[in-house]
Amino acid sequence: MSWTIRRLAAALELEAPARDGKLRGVASLEAAGPEELSFVARTAYGERLAQTAAGCVIVPPELRERVPSVALIAERPHAAFARAAALLHPDAPARGTRAETAAISPQAEVATDADLASGCVVEAGAHIASGVVLDPGVLIGEGVELGPGCRVGAGAVITGRSRLGARVRVQPGAVVGGEGFGYVWDDGAWLRVPQLGRVWVGDDVQIGAGTTIDRGALDDTVIGDGVLLDNQIQVGHNVRIGAHTAIAGCAGIAGSAVIGRRCTIGGAAGIVGHIEIVDDVHITAMSLVSHSILEAGTYAGVPLAPHGEWLRNAARFRQLDAMARRLGKLERIAGGNKEQP
Amino acid sequence: MSWTIRRLAAALELEAPARDGKLRGVASLEAAGPEELSFVARTAYGERLAQTAAGCVIVPPELRERVPSVALIAERPHAAFARAAALLHPDAPARGTRAETAAISPQAEVATDADLASGCVVEAGAHIASGVVLDPGVLIGEGVELGPGCRVGAGAVITGRSRLGARVRVQPGAVVGGEGFGYVWDDGAWLRVPQLGRVWVGDDVQIGAGTTIDRGALDDTVIGDGVLLDNQIQVGHNVRIGAHTAIAGCAGIAGSAVIGRRCTIGGAAGIVGHIEIVDDVHITAMSLVSHSILEAGTYAGVPLAPHGEWLRNAARFRQLDAMARRLGKLERIAGGNKEQP
Amino acid sequence: MSWTIRRLAAALELEAPARDGKLRGVASLEAAGPEELSFVARTAYGERLAQTAAGCVIVPPELRERVPSVALIAERPHAAFARAAALLHPDAPARGTRAETAAISPQAEVATDADLASGCVVEAGAHIASGVVLDPGVLIGEGVELGPGCRVGAGAVITGRSRLGARVRVQPGAVVGGEGFGYVWDDGAWLRVPQLGRVWVGDDVQIGAGTTIDRGALDDTVIGDGVLLDNQIQVGHNVRIGAHTAIAGCAGIAGSAVIGRRCTIGGAAGIVGHIEIVDDVHITAMSLVSHSILEAGTYAGVPLAPHGEWLRNAARFRQLDAMARRLGKLERIAGGNKEQP
Repeated sequence: MSWTIRRLAAALELEAPARDGKLRGVASLEAAGPEELSFVARTAYGERLAQTAAGCVIVPPELRERVPSVALIAERPHAAFARAAALLHPDAPARGTRAETAAISPQAEVATDADLASGCVVEAGAHIASGVVLDPGVLIGEGVELGPGCRVGAGAVITGRSRLGARVRVQPGAVVGGEGFGYVWDDGAWLRVPQLGRVWVGDDVQIGAGTTIDRGALDDTVIGDGVLLDNQIQVGHNVRIGAHTAIAGCAGIAGSAVIGRRCTIGGAAGIVGHIEIVDDVHITAMSLVSHSILEAGTYAGVPLAPHGEWLRNAARFRQLDAMARRLGKLERIAGGNKEQP
Repeated sequence: MSWTIRRLAAALELEAPARDGKLRGVASLEAAGPEELSFVARTAYGERLAQTAAGCVIVPPELRERVPSVALIAERPHAAFARAAALLHPDAPARGTRAETAAISPQAEVATDADLASGCVVEAGAHIASGVVLDPGVLIGEGVELGPGCRVGAGAVITGRSRLGARVRVQPGAVVGGEGFGYVWDDGAWLRVPQLGRVWVGDDVQIGAGTTIDRGALDDTVIGDGVLLDNQIQVGHNVRIGAHTAIAGCAGIAGSAVIGRRCTIGGAAGIVGHIEIVDDVHITAMSLVSHSILEAGTYAGVPLAPHGEWLRNAARFRQLDAMARRLGKLERIAGGNKEQP
Repeated sequence: MSWTIRRLAAALELEAPARDGKLRGVASLEAAGPEELSFVARTAYGERLAQTAAGCVIVPPELRERVPSVALIAERPHAAFARAAALLHPDAPARGTRAETAAISPQAEVATDADLASGCVVEAGAHIASGVVLDPGVLIGEGVELGPGCRVGAGAVITGRSRLGARVRVQPGAVVGGEGFGYVWDDGAWLRVPQLGRVWVGDDVQIGAGTTIDRGALDDTVIGDGVLLDNQIQVGHNVRIGAHTAIAGCAGIAGSAVIGRRCTIGGAAGIVGHIEIVDDVHITAMSLVSHSILEAGTYAGVPLAPHGEWLRNAARFRQLDAMARRLGKLERIAGGNKEQP
């Protein structure tokens, strides 16, 4: 599909520019050429416009005059650019290809237009809806359901009768539906508790590379609509994550934790099991949530504290040795004082 | 296999209940129906019994009278329930299936009753014992040995001539036997040290999804009997983990660390290389073990300390800014004092 | 190939020993037999020599007389041993094998001497150079380029048109080129930003098991020559890592971070996005780099500080409760003082 700047402006519901031009794709300000679109997210970055060769740039209103080529004006330039990029570089649609080396159980139900690349395995009882794309080596276990438009990256594993909604994107190497870590100590050894629940994943969820989501022990693990999970996140059994919550890479969420809607969890943060986090909570990177959070806000640190409190105490931590020495000095003075009659 | 409550009580060596009934499976208290078994782990959770529709509930003795249907009495209800669940929901036994797309080297030795699902690869010199089940896309490298009853999840990789004991469960996407991180700095670049050891895994070990266990550099990496490794754990080369130790998700154990028996390591904890941890040590989540631990007990924090000490100091950390201001005030008083003749 | 001690000494450019002998391989001091080579890295470990049955031992000059068999003398014994081990245990060379179950696109270009094991997939537009070895189940996506001598472990995924230089070693289960975590919050939900960049990997890079490297959003993610990445590292989109930097397991590097040359990053350390770290910076395990580091040196902790400062403050942290009590006592004294007229 061929795009012009004016067609794009119309599609994005932006003001039509004075000049038109052809657009082949998007690029960064530094790399873009005359048939490419770029963007500046904030007015403060406006000086980067001077050198760009981009044929068109999406900018906030304040930068309108500083674009050397054609400007498109948007209140939220990054969001407008995201939409533009999706139009100029659409995902290749599913075409119903079935690689020769794909192993599809005759007891699976696969939409005729779904793409199954080389080495994919689809086991008995699986349902693959319309428009699904499975990259090479994807493994879809017994009874798994993939909603319309799901895209699963190479080598990802979906098992444990998991059910994914529409348009879920799974990155390579992710594992959805593995056995949870359910053991009970008994008579000097660990006794395994069979893991009989499933994973329910809502619509428009992103599951990052190497991320693992365990199936529930008895009830299910639940990932809400629009949830974003970056790479290498661990989600324990029976965790529930509310809609539109975003979790950064390497975070770990222990079993039965419940996380609200629209939360953000920073990279490598830890959340212990069996606690609750309400909606609109934000956790900074490498913090440890060791108890329930019942009030919206931003929290940080180990031990966890409201972010402002943590910042003040962390600043003092860097003075701790000096404080200890000041304290010793005062004690010597006080000792002297005491000796004074 | 069909179960009744009385047959189950007999199998678990629990007191026979007054009434009998059919059992189809297990479920949580909230979800269970009249032909399902549930449990209450502790007396404190007894109020949850009031609403359950479960046909049978395993409870501690104190709750005997509060079960609305049939009660089974156990001193350790969770352990009894785990055993019951394993009886009511047994693993499907291996049946000797060989998927058409499984690639099995003629130089491999595979028990006739082992199951090899679609896309599995078994290389030359591998030994697959009786009752082994390989899920789709499992990769078994040259010379690897799997003991009787091992179950390997989809897409897991076992390589480096690793040797797994009996009944080891490997979750999807785990990697056992990859090359360790062995490099030496020499003349301005890193020089690779060939990694020639193996991984020895005992009996009844659990290896979580995405967990990686490196093979030894010269000698072997050793995982003891009954060890539990949750998801996304990293185990460096030449680590030794004692029997029945359990490690929670996202923990990292650097090369040549030695961990004792019956330890528990919390989620995302770190253990540096070349140190020793004795038996019966417990490490809390996100702690960093930076030196050997020679006494049993519970430890926490960065820097690591006995747990009680850590709790006291961590509580004070949240007062640190206030302490600094109090210290400043005292200094002003002391300064004033000093000026007083 | 058969080796003698003298031939090996010549190959390593070490002084020829008085006696010669046959060598079959390398082993640890404890395990080595009369036809095996071992080493002692430092003079301090010399006492371990007494019991060894190794036929030859590489030692520093000070230990020359203490080797019970044949000594090879090296200033840097570990480096000499690494070179010796690579000679005695060379990688099996590529032989041009193509497994029956490998799925190779007719639009891919594969060197005739490259090895493709069972279950490998090579998609259209991929270039596989001479001497490449792909272990079972490796997935090479559209347009990916692998330089000469690359070795890719079982089940690893290389996608997103990534380009790897010469002799890159990828461990099992690694993912190179997955979609970055690019989203912008807009109107109550996350909007996906298409990820259009690539991953460029230099020569002689090591990529550990389960490590994930995201492709760039617009420009590329860049891994310099000789970089070492241990297992389960997360590298976000548009990260740039300078040559010969080594990163330990479980570290996480957020998007657009720039790391200099010859740095070392400790295990499970975190590096936030959009910051810069200059050359020759060392970060200790489990530290969080939350701002740019513009001066070479060693840094530690959360919050990050120069290492010496961190050590002093961390030692005081373990006295914090005692400090608080001492402070309270001083306040009581001062309060008493104030009351004194």
